[in-house]
Amino acid sequence: MSTFDFGQETEKLLKWLGRFGQDANGGVSRFLYKPEWVEAQKALEQYMQQAGFVVQYDDVGNLFGRLEGSEYKDETILTGSHVDTVKNGGLYDGQFGIIAGIIALEYLKKEYGQPLRNIEVVSMAEEEGSRFPYVFWGAKNILGIAKREEVETMVDFEGIPFIEAMRKAGFGFRPAGSTVRKDLKAFLEVHVEQGGVLEAEKKSVGIVEHIVGQRRFTIEITGEANHAGTTPMSYRKDAIHAASLIICAIMDITKSYGDPLVATVGKVEIKPNIVNVVPGKALFTLDARHTHKDILVKFTEEVTARMQGIAVQAGVELHIDMWMDADPVPMDTGIVGVMKKQCEKNGLSYKMMHSGAGHDSQIMASLIPTAMLFVPSHKGISHSPLEYTEPRDLAEGVKALVGALYELAYK
Amino acid sequence: MSTFDFGQETEKLLKWLGRFGQDANGGVSRFLYKPEWVEAQKALEQYMQQAGFVVQYDDVGNLFGRLEGSEYKDETILTGSHVDTVKNGGLYDGQFGIIAGIIALEYLKKEYGQPLRNIEVVSMAEEEGSRFPYVFWGAKNILGIAKREEVETMVDFEGIPFIEAMRKAGFGFRPAGSTVRKDLKAFLEVHVEQGGVLEAEKKSVGIVEHIVGQRRFTIEITGEANHAGTTPMSYRKDAIHAASLIICAIMDITKSYGDPLVATVGKVEIKPNIVNVVPGKALFTLDARHTHKDILVKFTEEVTARMQGIAVQAGVELHIDMWMDADPVPMDTGIVGVMKKQCEKNGLSYKMMHSGAGHDSQIMASLIPTAMLFVPSHKGISHSPLEYTEPRDLAEGVKALVGALYELAYK
Repeated sequence: MSTFDFGQETEKLLKWLGRFGQDANGGVSRFLYKPEWVEAQKALEQYMQQAGFVVQYDDVGNLFGRLEGSEYKDETILTGSHVDTVKNGGLYDGQFGIIAGIIALEYLKKEYGQPLRNIEVVSMAEEEGSRFPYVFWGAKNILGIAKREEVETMVDFEGIPFIEAMRKAGFGFRPAGSTVRKDLKAFLEVHVEQGGVLEAEKKSVGIVEHIVGQRRFTIEITGEANHAGTTPMSYRKDAIHAASLIICAIMDITKSYGDPLVATVGKVEIKPNIVNVVPGKALFTLDARHTHKDILVKFTEEVTARMQGIAVQAGVELHIDMWMDADPVPMDTGIVGVMKKQCEKNGLSYKMMHSGAGHDSQIMASLIPTAMLFVPSHKGISHSPLEYTEPRDLAEGVKALVGALYELAYK
Repeated sequence: MSTFDFGQETEKLLKWLGRFGQDANGGVSRFLYKPEWVEAQKALEQYMQQAGFVVQYDDVGNLFGRLEGSEYKDETILTGSHVDTVKNGGLYDGQFGIIAGIIALEYLKKEYGQPLRNIEVVSMAEEEGSRFPYVFWGAKNILGIAKREEVETMVDFEGIPFIEAMRKAGFGFRPAGSTVRKDLKAFLEVHVEQGGVLEAEKKSVGIVEHIVGQRRFTIEITGEANHAGTTPMSYRKDAIHAASLIICAIMDITKSYGDPLVATVGKVEIKPNIVNVVPGKALFTLDARHTHKDILVKFTEEVTARMQGIAVQAGVELHIDMWMDADPVPMDTGIVGVMKKQCEKNGLSYKMMHSGAGHDSQIMASLIPTAMLFVPSHKGISHSPLEYTEPRDLAEGVKALVGALYELAYK
């Protein structure tokens, strides 16, 4: 793999694809079924045709480019990621998984000729939920698990119905009763880490073993709003003091569990939120993630008990609402093993890790053996025009994918 | 004082005065120089004339009703409070001090005839700062310390200039070089407590010894916004965690000082304030009050040092801005002594206390011997249509005022 400059080629194609939906400030906003989204898919279609892939869309607009296998024609190894972005996103999230797949297929074809099994790269229609309040539209349609009634009444922020947007882009629903592809034997997604671990540990590639489970809560504390000057401390039922005690306790408990547990209080609102009034209400969110469900459950139960204890002591009322409970998703140990072996064989600097963010892979894994490769995110930045990955790290990521695809499709 | 029903009479007059500026939901909004404010002052003027007081306005619209003294004609004992209200305020804050004064003067005149010294009740133009960004306009003009240039360019929330509003109400600035009254020998203000201490301790009257000093701060914590899923706990610079540690520390230190120190974190804002992002910024206010300046200073210095220590440990930046520093105001010990003696003599249930809120008295005290009497606020509620004081407590407050005025003006 030495003569071809994977890093330079990847960076070039990322910039090329990033022109579709480019914002004035340099970021990318490419929402599902918008004109710039259609243009990006058309450009990818054309590129892949010129590269000699067999190209086709599915009903909803997922775009596939295929190297035909010579031997096992009913077995396909799939790679890729999503083509949509968040509002004013960067050049790497999503895009890189598609570009990595295209470059890997081009390289494999040139170096090793026709594979035994089909290899496909997919540019998935949607993952971010940025235009409509629905995520994983692309992956869920590949698996046949998206439901028409879930999107039929949805409109975007301009009031445009989902169906109208889809039709206008030239796509429609998967016909009722149509069969789902049975040939998909593996899915490999390359993605930027969106965190700072690989950079801090100076590793180029992360092999994902689990995608974390998440539980999200809204906690509402009701105390008593009172005059800041005339209410002695012992008379108060101060909602922000109770909230602060609880937040400190959450962080202490989280740290006592150690990695990979993370817990975040991301949103805080108090009422009446006036300088000279003791707050009567405090509302905050808790987002807790872990790779193993039993530990996530144990943690959230422990935190809940501690919150209740603090509330009783502080004389405030507590209402805890868990509004999200997503199980962790393990990656396929067989493919993870292949990736690891390839990284070792090719001397890549890798780290076994988990994904703390959600990805198409967590959907794909429910029906197809799936695994992910990460490359570093500079300063952990994602969903921003400031997303950046060094070309040498991009190169290592693509090389790891090439090695794994070779192992899965040529042997 | 037994046959006259002070409570019933006070309640009747409070309701009568509360009709000027009455809101649809029953509260009162009576802003400086608004038509309803003019009507209220005119109604009070007429009432006091009918009661046989000598009535006059000063230049800016403070209204005085006077019982002439027989002996010491250049000595006046003044009582009263402010006639303006906050937006949608109650029947007691301000109003009660005026009504208590009127009833006391009527009673004294009827019971004891002409005093030796003049007694006046004042309905002060403004204290709350609800219409224009200026407080104590009434009291500061009585003392001749209001400055024309401080209000000349001010406009209210509708864009109406202060001067235009004043002229339209029929008033103007005190003429340059005009002399200030030298006859004011004492000021006594009766007011609702605006806190819950008297009610909790089942006392009818509070004799105020100090009005607290206040220091107000805005504290800004800068950490690092990060992805809630992909940022391990040890990589975080979590602004809300640092803020929570600091708030808990402030409350611990406050409680270690004990009463009368109070400290309030009333306003909290975090950024970006999104469920799945570790907050990069947290901003909160601290309002600290104490009756003694040295302790207030020591406390805020101790808190500042602790905040800095926590910020260093948490790896966040800290910016502390003190934007208010008002000294405590002691009440006149002579008048306080007279009030105490009267309460004991008349068997009133009283408590020596401080005022945690600001009042006209803190301005008046700078040039005139001043003291305050409190009556209970039900549940500590003030600045609300829900303000309430039991008639029997109103009665005790007025009786305490009667006793003190008798002592100061008839002997």
